[in-house]
Order: sequence, then C-alpha cells, then structure tokens
Amino acid sequence: MFESSVYANRRRVLLERMAGAKGIAVFVGNADAAMNYRGNDYKFRQDSSFMYYWGIDEPWFAAVLDLETGDECLFGNDVDIDDIIWMGPQPSVASKGALIGCSRTAPLPEFDKTVLEAVAKGRRIHFLPPARYYNQMKLAQLTGIPADDVRKVGAGASEELVKAVVSMRLIKEACEIEEIDKACEIGYEMHTEARRGCKPGVLEQEIVGRMEGITLSKGWGVSFTTILSQNGETLHNHSHHQIITPGRLLVVDAGAESNTHYASDFTRTYPCSGKFTTKQREIYDIVEQANEVAYSLTKPGTSYWDVHLATARYMLEQLKALDFVRGDVDEMLHQGISGLFMPHGLGHNMGMDVHDMEDLGENYVGYGDERQRHPLLGLGNLRMARNLKPGHVVTDEPGIYFIPALIEQWKREGTDKGFVNYAKLTDYYDFGGIRLEDDVLVTEDGARRLGSRRLPIKSKDVEDIMSQE
Amino acid sequence: MFESSVYANRRRVLLERMAGAKGIAVFVGNADAAMNYRGNDYKFRQDSSFMYYWGIDEPWFAAVLDLETGDECLFGNDVDIDDIIWMGPQPSVASKGALIGCSRTAPLPEFDKTVLEAVAKGRRIHFLPPARYYNQMKLAQLTGIPADDVRKVGAGASEELVKAVVSMRLIKEACEIEEIDKACEIGYEMHTEARRGCKPGVLEQEIVGRMEGITLSKGWGVSFTTILSQNGETLHNHSHHQIITPGRLLVVDAGAESNTHYASDFTRTYPCSGKFTTKQREIYDIVEQANEVAYSLTKPGTSYWDVHLATARYMLEQLKALDFVRGDVDEMLHQGISGLFMPHGLGHNMGMDVHDMEDLGENYVGYGDERQRHPLLGLGNLRMARNLKPGHVVTDEPGIYFIPALIEQWKREGTDKGFVNYAKLTDYYDFGGIRLEDDVLVTEDGARRLGSRRLPIKSKDVEDIMSQE
Repeated sequence: MFESSVYANRRRVLLERMAGAKGIAVFVGNADAAMNYRGNDYKFRQDSSFMYYWGIDEPWFAAVLDLETGDECLFGNDVDIDDIIWMGPQPSVASKGALIGCSRTAPLPEFDKTVLEAVAKGRRIHFLPPARYYNQMKLAQLTGIPADDVRKVGAGASEELVKAVVSMRLIKEACEIEEIDKACEIGYEMHTEARRGCKPGVLEQEIVGRMEGITLSKGWGVSFTTILSQNGETLHNHSHHQIITPGRLLVVDAGAESNTHYASDFTRTYPCSGKFTTKQREIYDIVEQANEVAYSLTKPGTSYWDVHLATARYMLEQLKALDFVRGDVDEMLHQGISGLFMPHGLGHNMGMDVHDMEDLGENYVGYGDERQRHPLLGLGNLRMARNLKPGHVVTDEPGIYFIPALIEQWKREGTDKGFVNYAKLTDYYDFGGIRLEDDVLVTEDGARRLGSRRLPIKSKDVEDIMSQE
Repeated sequence: MFESSVYANRRRVLLERMAGAKGIAVFVGNADAAMNYRGNDYKFRQDSSFMYYWGIDEPWFAAVLDLETGDECLFGNDVDIDDIIWMGPQPSVASKGALIGCSRTAPLPEFDKTVLEAVAKGRRIHFLPPARYYNQMKLAQLTGIPADDVRKVGAGASEELVKAVVSMRLIKEACEIEEIDKACEIGYEMHTEARRGCKPGVLEQEIVGRMEGITLSKGWGVSFTTILSQNGETLHNHSHHQIITPGRLLVVDAGAESNTHYASDFTRTYPCSGKFTTKQREIYDIVEQANEVAYSLTKPGTSYWDVHLATARYMLEQLKALDFVRGDVDEMLHQGISGLFMPHGLGHNMGMDVHDMEDLGENYVGYGDERQRHPLLGLGNLRMARNLKPGHVVTDEPGIYFIPALIEQWKREGTDKGFVNYAKLTDYYDFGGIRLEDDVLVTEDGARRLGSRRLPIKSKDVEDIMSQE
C-alpha cells in the first residue's frame, strides 16, 4: 500500500470533483468470494475503487464520504479470540484507518445503520456500479433500489460519482506507474517462461501452470485468465488441453497483477516449430509493424481512436499488397473491412484493472463526452478512444485473425461490399491468428513502453531466441 | 468428466432417496464470479453438487428434476456468432445433455419460467443451500423466499434434499477415489516443492507460487488457499510475506484440485534450519505418532468421534509425560483440556470439496442423526464424527499449537481447571505450531492413505531428506 497521504489526497480531490453534489458517497468493499463453499474462498481481491480511495486490502470493509460536510468513516470489525486462533492477531480497525489517513472508524454494522439513516432522511446515496453480486445485493438491501437497477448508471449507480472516479483513475500517479512497471517485469518473466515452454509435445496446461506460478511467486497472481492457445483466431480462448504441435502458431496473452494490485497485459505469438512458415511470417510482420505504427503515433494531442484507425489503415494496405483485399483503402476503412481481420479494438486503458474500470462502464472510461461509439465491428469494439493525455496507460495490441465462421458470415451476408478476396482466404482457414501487445504510458512528449525490457517481437529475433532455448 | 451413465445413475438414486417427496428439485449451476469486474472472472469453478449430478463444468447452466414424475431437463444457452469470435465454436447444449445422459435440454431463460410456473402452481421447490451470492439472489428471485432465508435449511433450502445428497456424496464411488488419488499425486509434488524450498532466506511467497504453479500445470489449481507459515499457531494463516528464518518451524497445509474437481489436502511441518531442535522434536514426534494412532483406528465399525478422542488422549498422555499438563488424563479429556493444544478437530470429510459439502451444513455432513455436536473447544470443532463406512474419505490431521492469546485467556478465565502447567508453557510462546495431515480412505476392512506415495513424515526421515536437498 502507498503512504497514507496518497489515499487522503485522493479523497480530497474526489470531494472537489464532486463539489456541489448532495448526499453521501458509499463504498462497499469486497466480501470473500466462495470458490465452492463459504469459507473456501478464491484468493481475496479488493474492489479496485475501494482500494484506490481507502487502501484496505481485506474483506468486509466499507466506507462513507459525506459529500456536503467532507466527513468520512471507515467501517470494519475488530477481531475476537476465535479470529486470533484461526487468523492470528490483527491490527485494530482504528490503526488501519490511520494508515489511510482516516481518523474516524466504526464497526461494520454501523455502516448499514449510517446508510439506512441517510436513506430515511431522503439524502442522495452515491455509489459505483458494483462488480460483485454480494455488493449488488448489499446496495439493493440498503437503498431499496431493485438489485437489477443497482448496477445501472443513473437508475441506481451515480453518474456523477462514476465520472469523478474515472477522471481520477484514468491519469496514473507516479506511484501507480511504478507499480505497473513492476507488474510488467513479472509479465516479462511469465512470457519468457511461455516462449521457452513452446516446444512440440508439451501440454498447453503445463506452460500455463508454470507461467501462473511465477505471477504467484512474485505478485498477486494473474491480472486475467491466461490465454494460451493454438487457436488464436478465438480471441478469448481459455482451454489449455492441446499439445504444442509443429507448424501451428501459439498465441500467449497473459499478464500479472502486482502485490499492490496493478496489472500488466502482454501478447506474443510464437511459431510452435521455432520457425515461421512464409505464410505465417507475412502476416506476423504486418502485425509487428502495426504495433510499431500505433506506438509511434501514441502521444498527447492525438486520440486513440485515430491511432486505431491509422493502424487499421496500415494493416489494410499490407493485406491489399498480399491480395487479401482489393480496392480503395480509404473506402475499405470507411466500410470497416479491417474488422473482418481484427474484430477488436487497438487497445484499452490499464491500471488496477487490466481493462481499467470496465465495471464503471466502458463508454465512461474510454469515450467520455469526447466521442460516440462507432457501430462497425472492429472500431466499434475499441475500448479506448479518448484524446491522449500524459498519465494514460493503454495497451497497443493489433492482431490479424482468420475466423472461418466470421468469413463465412461476411461472404453469406455480403458484409465485405466486394472488397474481400475470398478465394485467397480459403487457404487460411486453418491459419489461426496473431496478436502482439505491449503496455504503453503516455508521457509529456510521447510514450514509453512499460517495463524495463521489451519482450522479443521481431520475427527474426523471436526465431533466433527460440533456436537458443 | 465421467461416463454419461455415472450422472444418469446418480440422478436415479437421488430420485429413489427422495421417494415420496413432492415437487421439483432445482439446481442452479454457478455463474462466472467477477474478480475485479464482470468479464474478468476468477477461474471458473462449478458448484460441486451441480457437477456431481449434472457433470457440466461451465458457467450459466441450471437443471430441474421432477421428484414426482422423474422428468429432468438441463438448461443452457447455445452460442451465437459473437460467442464464436470470442470463445470459439462450442458443442450444442443438446449434445452436452447427451454426455450426461439427459435427453431433454432447453435454453436458460426456460429455467426461470419452469421454476416460476411451479411456484405459481404451489409446487414445492427443493434446492440446496447456495454457496454463492449469485445463486442465492437467483433462488430468492424465483421462489420469493427472502435472500437471507434461502441459505437456511428448512426456511429456504430443503432438508430432505440436503440429507439425500449428503448420503450419496459421503460414500465415494470407485471413479471418484481414482480422481482423489490423482489429486493426492499432485499434492505430493506440491509438498515436495515446498520442502525443497524451505531454506533460510527464501521468501514464503516464492515457495507458495511454485507450489501453486504445479497444481495449475497438473490440475485445476489449489483445493484451498495455501497455508504456508512460520506462525503455525495461527491455524489459517494466509499471509506469505515472511522470510524463512533458521530455528523456526514452517507449517505447510496445501492441496490440489484435479482437473475433474476432486481435492487433496496435506500438511507437513518442516524445521527451517533443516534440523529440529530438541524442543521441536519432542512435540513433532507426539504429533507424528498421533497421526499414526488415528490412522490405526480408522476402519468401519468405529466412529471418527472416537478416533478423535483416542488421538486427543494419546496427545494428553504425551504432554503429561513432558509436564505440560498434570493430573488424570481421563478427567482432562472430559474437561476438554486437549483443546488448548489442538483447538480443531482431527479431520473432515474430503471429496469434490476439501471440506466436503461444507455448504450443505457441517452437521448434516459430519454428524447426521448419529450424534450431537459437543460444546468444548477442540472436540466441538470436529467436522466429521460419524460412524465410519467403506467409501468415506477423511483427513487425519492432529496438531499441537502454542497460541499465546488462547493460553492467556485460559489462564485468566481458569478454563484449564488446574490441569495446565503454565510455567512450562511460558517457554513455548514463540514455538508456533505443528500439524501433520494425510488423506485416508475407509476401506472394507480398514483404511488406506490416499496417493501412491506418502510424504516423508518421521522426524528423522524429514531431516535426512532435507539434508540431501
């Protein structure tokens, strides 16, 4: 955790950004989450916004911030003798409050009373859309808002609070960037392990286990479920039961969460034989250069929407040179033809969450009032479109995929408007996909790839290092 | 997963055991569980009873079994093109039904309709106490029972169904024992890694990460959050931030879950220096022999309550020989004096859950109608007290701990009735604790320790192997 002043300062800024708002802001910390029964829980993960403002990395806490008076209180239970036997002696809630600069603390049941009293007085209760069902149930019970509405911004969750929190968490503080760099170091080690494990005959699950072991040894764990698949055309493939097979491509999309709960997120694609085929290298080099194009454009004064489009244009030009598509590139871009090959966006914000603040609403986070979301596949899936500012942390993750079901659908429905050379594509139905991803900080005058070392990415470098491993 | 007949047969037996019951039994499979936002989920874990009867290891399924007609239906959604892009092509729900011998399937929204219709007709809705908040919310919404009551057996959950399910899951089938043996093999590898890592200067978290990496490479993951601590006197210590320090003891209580979701659960205690001190060896050898005493008594025809008591008696006799306690051992046993040193029970049932079926109610599982729970610390914490039968799988995990807060409380409150030699205990406030645990199958004529190899346990064997590693 950071110094107490970090948390106190964040709450002060939040009060400023909520100036004029009536009522109280309530924060329900995460409860234990049962794996198979209550008491046998998943590894505890605090709610990110609770962690951001209140710093307590333990279950069963809550907090209230009075937006009118600035009064604040942290709620949690002190331990009894039974807890000491099972969990050991624990610092008091009051001393935990002191560590986050919060002088008022109270037992957890007081939280319910405080909120219920505010509701009874007709005060406005501001809260963020809860990610977890427990928090959703709790907020529904306390506020009387139906459980299904609690998560809807406006109907339940507070739009003012969402916007204020997003405005703060989007711009990373120096202490946060330090932690993201640490998560990137662990991510580097995970991916190095994956590359070394990518040998014919190895079970995918073996590699995944070793990678995740590293994140658990050095940090909190994975920042998201590892994607390690020879079916890279499936964007979020979480099955790991295949054997590494010569001739195929292995997409590894994985990241670590630091002990302080900051994420990294990298993707590399490896030739399972150690060498790319000509077909594979042609596509790989386009994606590798697309990643570079995006990085070179990432700086204050441009928007990530424009960076996405420039990257898509680059890929279409190259795909045209290889005769996958035919016609005017501007027109193709306009018609969203790149979405057939890259049905996702160029990247997303990253911070305490790998898709930062996704629970607060993707459009609040990645678009704000700056821009409307586009309807087309690809650009429409872009999670971060904002004008770039120093302190933004984004992923740069172009990809090219050959997804048989999608190609067939476009062909059937004429979605390609005649731009796609389907005859050429028939040879690529068993190709899979390629994605290459780095994490990038927007700086005052440009950008910096996070982590102290970049994972090998050029096709020749990848082949060289794989031949030595 | 097992052959389809396994699941069909279990449902047939369940119908038999529920013979005469009115209404329908409903099973809500687990949903995805958000780690920090919905879509960024913890590794999926199915509800164990859902898995047991319906075999589907994926989120967003449900099932209904009509207790009067025997009609059954599996509910789940088939995928659309968006799902294919992100998750790949998937088998149909109908084909998944065929794999578990269930010929009727329907889309998930039909589940809600089916239950609501049955409620409207006044039919009895039988369900198990849900472990997860989503399932709790869902059952409350469908049945109209308040969320807080849904989990209470009788008020919400069905006692008949709980008893029928417990009666079946308690006695492990041959195919289940095979899977538990596999989980024990992975547990053996985890613990071997831990023992090898137990060297002065190593960070506890490093060892934990490597152990958990093994479970993820070979199985589903951990069967519970790993306990690896030099403060072994804290029974469930989940912090791993200390450095292995010469002279201390390292308690490692950890287990694996197989890919088919069966658990293992072992504990070993290592001298951080590689050699036990005399004080440590004296206590260690008592615990090691207590584990043996318990094992030798574990067989059909005795109860685990009696095995617990015999083990506690053995430990009291030995502690008396070392002058920790003074007086009549029978009387000490009667007064629960062993609870000061071992405030937990000898063991618990183990199966798909490491504390098997704990979500169904510890007393239904470990006591049934056979016995009432005892109020005293120690025996009162015994999770499995039943008369042993072939097919029971239990843990054998005696321990001796020196818990300063508990000792002080007993001294202050006179709980020891004069049996405890507090003067001797003052030298043990920094001792920590020792626990030694194996997993045991009750067979037709005795018992078998599960897994093909037993982790080294005798103090000499542990020292010998540590000196070679």
